[in-house]
Amino acid sequence: PKLLLLLLLPLPPPPPPPPPLVFVCVQSCHATKPNMLNVHLVPHTHDDVGWLKTVDQYFYGDRNDIQHAGVQYILDSVVDQLLKNPDRRFIYVETAFFYRWWKQQSSSMQQTVRQLVNEGRLEFVNGGWCMSDEATTHYSAVIDQMTMGLRFLNETFGACGRPRVAWHIDPFGHAREHASMFAQMGYDGFFFGRLDYQDRARRMMAKEQELLWRASDSLTPPVADLFTGILPNGYNPPEGFCWDQSCDDPPIRDDPDLEDYNVDDVVKRFMAIAENQALVYKTNHIIMTMGSDFQYENANLWYKNLDKLIRYVNGLQSNSSKVNVLYSTPSCYLQELHRANLTWALKTDDFFPYADSAHDFWTGYFTSRPALKRYERISNSNLQTCNQLEVLGGPVSRKGPFGGGDSQTMKKAMAVAQHHDAVSGTEKQHVANDYARKLASGWQHCQVLVSNSLAALSGSSSERIYCDNLNISVCPLTATSKKFSVSVYNPLARPVTWPVRLPVNGTAYTVSDANGKPVDCQVVPVSKATQEVRRNRGFAVNELVFQVQAPPLGYSTYSVSLLQDGSPPTSTQHRTPTVIQNKFLKVTFDPDTGLLSSLSNLETQQSIKLTQNFYWYNASDGNNSLSIQPSGAYIFRPNSSTPFIISRLRSLMVQEVRQWFSPWVSQVVRLYADSRALELEWTVGPVPIDDSLGKEVITRLDTSIQTGEYFYTDSNGREMLQRKKDFRPTWQLKQSEPIAGNYYPINSRAFIKDDVDQLTVVTDRSQGGGSIHNGSLEIMLHRRLLYDDVRGVAEPLNETSDIFPEGLVVRGRLLLSLDRPPSAADAHRPLAQEVVLQPKYKFKFWLQAALPPAVHLLTLSQWDKDSVLLRLEHQFQSWESKVNSQPVTVNLQKLFSTLDVLGMSELNLSANQWKDEMKRFDWTPQKGTGRPNLPLTSLQ
Amino acid sequence: PKLLLLLLLPLPPPPPPPPPLVFVCVQSCHATKPNMLNVHLVPHTHDDVGWLKTVDQYFYGDRNDIQHAGVQYILDSVVDQLLKNPDRRFIYVETAFFYRWWKQQSSSMQQTVRQLVNEGRLEFVNGGWCMSDEATTHYSAVIDQMTMGLRFLNETFGACGRPRVAWHIDPFGHAREHASMFAQMGYDGFFFGRLDYQDRARRMMAKEQELLWRASDSLTPPVADLFTGILPNGYNPPEGFCWDQSCDDPPIRDDPDLEDYNVDDVVKRFMAIAENQALVYKTNHIIMTMGSDFQYENANLWYKNLDKLIRYVNGLQSNSSKVNVLYSTPSCYLQELHRANLTWALKTDDFFPYADSAHDFWTGYFTSRPALKRYERISNSNLQTCNQLEVLGGPVSRKGPFGGGDSQTMKKAMAVAQHHDAVSGTEKQHVANDYARKLASGWQHCQVLVSNSLAALSGSSSERIYCDNLNISVCPLTATSKKFSVSVYNPLARPVTWPVRLPVNGTAYTVSDANGKPVDCQVVPVSKATQEVRRNRGFAVNELVFQVQAPPLGYSTYSVSLLQDGSPPTSTQHRTPTVIQNKFLKVTFDPDTGLLSSLSNLETQQSIKLTQNFYWYNASDGNNSLSIQPSGAYIFRPNSSTPFIISRLRSLMVQEVRQWFSPWVSQVVRLYADSRALELEWTVGPVPIDDSLGKEVITRLDTSIQTGEYFYTDSNGREMLQRKKDFRPTWQLKQSEPIAGNYYPINSRAFIKDDVDQLTVVTDRSQGGGSIHNGSLEIMLHRRLLYDDVRGVAEPLNETSDIFPEGLVVRGRLLLSLDRPPSAADAHRPLAQEVVLQPKYKFKFWLQAALPPAVHLLTLSQWDKDSVLLRLEHQFQSWESKVNSQPVTVNLQKLFSTLDVLGMSELNLSANQWKDEMKRFDWTPQKGTGRPNLPLTSLQ
Repeated sequence: PKLLLLLLLPLPPPPPPPPPLVFVCVQSCHATKPNMLNVHLVPHTHDDVGWLKTVDQYFYGDRNDIQHAGVQYILDSVVDQLLKNPDRRFIYVETAFFYRWWKQQSSSMQQTVRQLVNEGRLEFVNGGWCMSDEATTHYSAVIDQMTMGLRFLNETFGACGRPRVAWHIDPFGHAREHASMFAQMGYDGFFFGRLDYQDRARRMMAKEQELLWRASDSLTPPVADLFTGILPNGYNPPEGFCWDQSCDDPPIRDDPDLEDYNVDDVVKRFMAIAENQALVYKTNHIIMTMGSDFQYENANLWYKNLDKLIRYVNGLQSNSSKVNVLYSTPSCYLQELHRANLTWALKTDDFFPYADSAHDFWTGYFTSRPALKRYERISNSNLQTCNQLEVLGGPVSRKGPFGGGDSQTMKKAMAVAQHHDAVSGTEKQHVANDYARKLASGWQHCQVLVSNSLAALSGSSSERIYCDNLNISVCPLTATSKKFSVSVYNPLARPVTWPVRLPVNGTAYTVSDANGKPVDCQVVPVSKATQEVRRNRGFAVNELVFQVQAPPLGYSTYSVSLLQDGSPPTSTQHRTPTVIQNKFLKVTFDPDTGLLSSLSNLETQQSIKLTQNFYWYNASDGNNSLSIQPSGAYIFRPNSSTPFIISRLRSLMVQEVRQWFSPWVSQVVRLYADSRALELEWTVGPVPIDDSLGKEVITRLDTSIQTGEYFYTDSNGREMLQRKKDFRPTWQLKQSEPIAGNYYPINSRAFIKDDVDQLTVVTDRSQGGGSIHNGSLEIMLHRRLLYDDVRGVAEPLNETSDIFPEGLVVRGRLLLSLDRPPSAADAHRPLAQEVVLQPKYKFKFWLQAALPPAVHLLTLSQWDKDSVLLRLEHQFQSWESKVNSQPVTVNLQKLFSTLDVLGMSELNLSANQWKDEMKRFDWTPQKGTGRPNLPLTSLQ
Repeated sequence: PKLLLLLLLPLPPPPPPPPPLVFVCVQSCHATKPNMLNVHLVPHTHDDVGWLKTVDQYFYGDRNDIQHAGVQYILDSVVDQLLKNPDRRFIYVETAFFYRWWKQQSSSMQQTVRQLVNEGRLEFVNGGWCMSDEATTHYSAVIDQMTMGLRFLNETFGACGRPRVAWHIDPFGHAREHASMFAQMGYDGFFFGRLDYQDRARRMMAKEQELLWRASDSLTPPVADLFTGILPNGYNPPEGFCWDQSCDDPPIRDDPDLEDYNVDDVVKRFMAIAENQALVYKTNHIIMTMGSDFQYENANLWYKNLDKLIRYVNGLQSNSSKVNVLYSTPSCYLQELHRANLTWALKTDDFFPYADSAHDFWTGYFTSRPALKRYERISNSNLQTCNQLEVLGGPVSRKGPFGGGDSQTMKKAMAVAQHHDAVSGTEKQHVANDYARKLASGWQHCQVLVSNSLAALSGSSSERIYCDNLNISVCPLTATSKKFSVSVYNPLARPVTWPVRLPVNGTAYTVSDANGKPVDCQVVPVSKATQEVRRNRGFAVNELVFQVQAPPLGYSTYSVSLLQDGSPPTSTQHRTPTVIQNKFLKVTFDPDTGLLSSLSNLETQQSIKLTQNFYWYNASDGNNSLSIQPSGAYIFRPNSSTPFIISRLRSLMVQEVRQWFSPWVSQVVRLYADSRALELEWTVGPVPIDDSLGKEVITRLDTSIQTGEYFYTDSNGREMLQRKKDFRPTWQLKQSEPIAGNYYPINSRAFIKDDVDQLTVVTDRSQGGGSIHNGSLEIMLHRRLLYDDVRGVAEPLNETSDIFPEGLVVRGRLLLSLDRPPSAADAHRPLAQEVVLQPKYKFKFWLQAALPPAVHLLTLSQWDKDSVLLRLEHQFQSWESKVNSQPVTVNLQKLFSTLDVLGMSELNLSANQWKDEMKRFDWTPQKGTGRPNLPLTSLQ
């Protein structure tokens, strides 16, 4: 896939000049010594954009009883200390924080900081709004958050503020798609801290902690090549050298009049560490990360001792020492590695799953907080709609008949939600609540914008009601009105057909489209078990279901009228059906168990055996002879590799197959008339814990497909990666956790296949999953745990809420498609995009024509007053479709009906650099060394 | 008593000009508003000169695992932050730390700091080397440490650096003598934080938290009058307003775009606190101490929020608010109180004992760490000797035949040891070890100086051996030599007679004085129980005892020759003697119990019944229905008010009466030929704890004296204060701890008396004690505790050492004198000074004549190259002696044989101001209000 990034400029006024691209940034790297071991000290702080505290609490330093951390003070302090000694350096990473701080500074302080940036004394690295999670984020949201952060830096500091290095020191495993995106954003290199402990051990032996990551099998090298360095000590300073206020290591005591003069001891320890570290890296340059979580709040402590360290260590050079210490930054360090002109081991797989010890697999967070994960995904869809309608409706969208609206609030909320302790689900409960609240607030702002935009585009300012709680079948308007109309907006650049489910209390309705033509519809009861509860709470008890068709970037409107009120339809008990089918698919059920038994694609005439059931793993409580590690927000560790089956089942209805597994696990199996995918709508919760057992609930699909031990998962929703049970492509795995060690992030889809059949499962949120048995694919749906996993959160992952005080109930959808492997992507690519960008609103038709199937409209967003950011994406991997993997040409000039394209300029992926000005370091991969990697161009 | 302070200037060169005394210090107090409530915010840090960490660890911020604290960073940070906003203020207190920091600064930084001081933005308060303990320190050492700190400030900053306010925010009770000293040092006022909770409650009701302390009954007011203010909140900020890095209170979140904007809430809470506080003080000015232990290491956090607080609170004045907040300092606050021109409650007693709750009496530290307390007291004596010999020997003392020596190391060690967690015994064990180590190091430096000085004065450079371990009867020279000479130096300004006890292994010796005249001597065995142990360790088994006579500021030399070697004298078992006596005293023992039974003064023909025994209180373990407070380093809390008796006893020898109470308590009762005092040399330890009971060991003297419930203790070794059981002079006491609540510090002596008899006990270190029964006086000797008392030390007070792994053994002396009350001081004043300043060395006679008995040579110390600091003290209280309380005239011109006095200038007590330039605020005491105080001029 090719990511195109373009600026579309509508009619007058003429475009503003681009930001200055050739900037005089002072060359600021300290000189190194070629015949010595050069130790690059990189002072840095790692500022989580929310974790134990909310992002705003972190900024101000509120709730220091939870964790001592105040970013405002960090930036205050670092700037002060940089000014005290021009040799000092600092890097800053998270623009979400920097932006907040910057806007509170006086103009003279801003000028001071600009000077520090121009002189390279303060360097931005990474520079996105946050340091995104790599397992559970969708690439579109990652690109958005990176763009927002980098744009701020570009506009504030120009080219000197543009990060050259990506810096993911904390995320718990690393996605190939992230590396690909970083390459396309123009980064020269990438550093991270966490990787599998076995992988690290091998790489240290082989001096392969520096490598060249070939991060796409579709893009021509070196487009997606990224030099990658693994930091020596996570992101912490070497042991004994932490001089932050949060550390207890001895400061350098250089006054001989006081007790415990320790300069000799400090220097000796430092030299030993440096020399040991040099043994496992290739060049005579090594890096030391001098900082950690929320450090440098009192930067004086660090710098005062670092100044002394440099002075005393280098002082020994006159005494034949060959160690040279210097203040440095990742880009200065990277420059030296590049100058070394060596070849580097090539890597084409990714860094999942991450284990830091034999029984400590960080695969739980792939699923943790499934409700938040889903809300984040819906919010992304809403944000794209909001962005598009801001462009399409013009300035009146932001200030119109419904008041002031904006997309900025939602953009920030989504950017923050990409943080590696946000959508990952690894934050404290109150912080998870804050992320959700921010997204909800973003959506409030977007609703005004959308209403304004719709008014301008439709010419009608009649009020629009948004039903945000359809996920729990709540919408007072539809539940109580006898007559209403529904508009559905489609944010995709191609027409879609979509089932709409509206909460109603009547038993019969008529539905007609905008031309008055009747549309088939049905009223189905909300699940029986909850009907009484729902009625008592004033919720609707039925759902009205019909299919809508919506044009590309357009809307359609349907009118609904009540025919019959009164008592709800008697839920007629039918015998379990054995078959449901439409023109595309046929699904059979076992008449004895009511379980799925086969799936057939009627078009391709293929059929597989397929059974599905729900299970739960008993989460380890840490009481175990092998390891005391319990399951928690980060860690997945089942007590036994055999999950408990939840139940046999009976199907209840005809229209849809409703499967009841237990009071807390149910499922509706649906086959819509126009759909090629089978929908499994699962509902899990409240997960019972009265037996004092933590539970990790999965669904497992068992098929007749001969998978060997292979299966496939996506990387951040884009490219697919091959996975193999108990195997890692780049080292000899010693498997210690047969389940957790075989879990991978499923961001948007997973599939299993053999020569003839491919079963693809598209998910509606990030989940974790694996293929433990031949022909089997399991996906973790929900987790309720009773112990903290001792990774800092200090809370068990045990979600409740106001409306679910007994435990959170989560509902979601899996879309299954069965295809021939060579054409499976033709189905799952558009299907997954439909799940990511859901039809939401009400409109006309603003694309003159649908885009070709291979091209996905990733971004359409107002950039500034006179320009628009458009991202078009080739969404097929090079090998995955005969038809759709081909290059495509799109005529942008006539694409939009409401926009006249005046001109366009291509930028890099993150829109902070003109594409043709993007210059990256070139790196040479090693040939024939190291362990062989997987073939690049096709998956087995 | 009158303290005279003089500079004696020896012959050429002429004296250097004095430091500039009229300095232009910018008037820097912020304007206040007369019709508003003015809230003085005083940013401050409280930096213990050793407590949980050593003083050097605190300076550098080492061992932050114990406690996060690094003073170097505090000063760095505060200076930075003061520069950022000229409105900001800071005070600094402990010169021990400031001095260390100052000498590491660049000259430009020093210039910057001078500017801040001159502009009053950085103000020194208190300014001594440390904030001394008030219960366990001797006034001479306090004066020394204050002088050292204030001298540094004077020499560095001139008059702008001279503290106007004394500031004892943490010491655990307050001594009247401290207030008297502060007044004589020129302080305008005094603030502290801790006082009895009942006292505080009454003072809040009566608005008497500001008072005029008339701190001497001998000095004519207002010489020792000191305005004293009690701080509202200890020394902490009001609740919810601690913005240090060590605190968790919410910062001011004034960005409406972020969550939890809290300006309105903060302002409202602040106004409420200010208005409540104003209710319990007299003026429309109140103070808030914005800081605490080791705070301001990252001063930005404090100041950023204080800036905002001031802005937002004062912003409401335009909206009719009557609260005015300002940055201030204690002297600015004091100035406003003085301007108020009110009258203030008068107080003449002191603030002991201190209880912060009904069962939490801070009376344990009066005795805690008795070995350290004694070592500190000996060190003071050694330091005075060192100082005197530096003056007498001239410059060659510092650099002479024995190398480089100095008194400075010992001065600093002693100054540090005065800290309220040093000699108090309330530090962690490793810190106590550090104080002792520093004193030992000081003494090493002094020994070289003394050797040099002696060589110059005597004309002989023969090597001198110092026996520092005589307290455990160890001196290899005397133990192994057949012939040696002993010189004894007398640091007192009058001749003394002193018993010398030297460890020997022979059984008979001859001793002769410098003229060859034989001197009576005796060989006595070291206590039998330990003889075998001693021999195994190579220690001497006998002691050679003889009386030496030493001239004022001079020495005498005695020659010793072995007569008989061989086996030690058989310790002949005698019957318990019933009487020992000399020409002054007669002591009888009960033949059945071996206990003391009476004491008679043969000169005055007075006799009292006197029994003495040893007991221990069972220390509370906190397991108690009234309170969970255990006994600990600070707190004394016996489980029961009835102590356990240790044993009946048998006396063992004739010459001295050796009393064995148990394997861990023994005593030698001695009556030297020329002494008017009876010596009780007690040995306690290892206190057994195998019964899991903490023990607080006392000795109790029970007499026939009719004391009512009165007894008397000294204040810092100077004036005597009357104590009464279950009574406080200034409030209606509700006694909740019948023992601990009746304990007072005994710094150098205590006495009980009736109309005819006064029994005075002179101690050799600070101890705690009380009079619980009529005629009885008990003194706590040793404490071994099994629980921490939860005042921060986090260690039980359970001392062991290398040579006492089973528990520390402590030995000490009580000197008892029996006199008629009107003349008792004539005996105990010189006696106590002999204990404080012990004869130590070897010399001639450098005072031309002894000083009159009323005058004590307190200080004779080299001030700078050409001048000498001399302090002469009238050591009698005005009422305590018919003879010696009279004024005295001394001719200084001819006092010293080796010094020609060229000129002299009188200074204040702390030598940082010319006496005639000392100007202090005048304050008016209230008349006839409040609770009546005790009569000032005589004690009952």
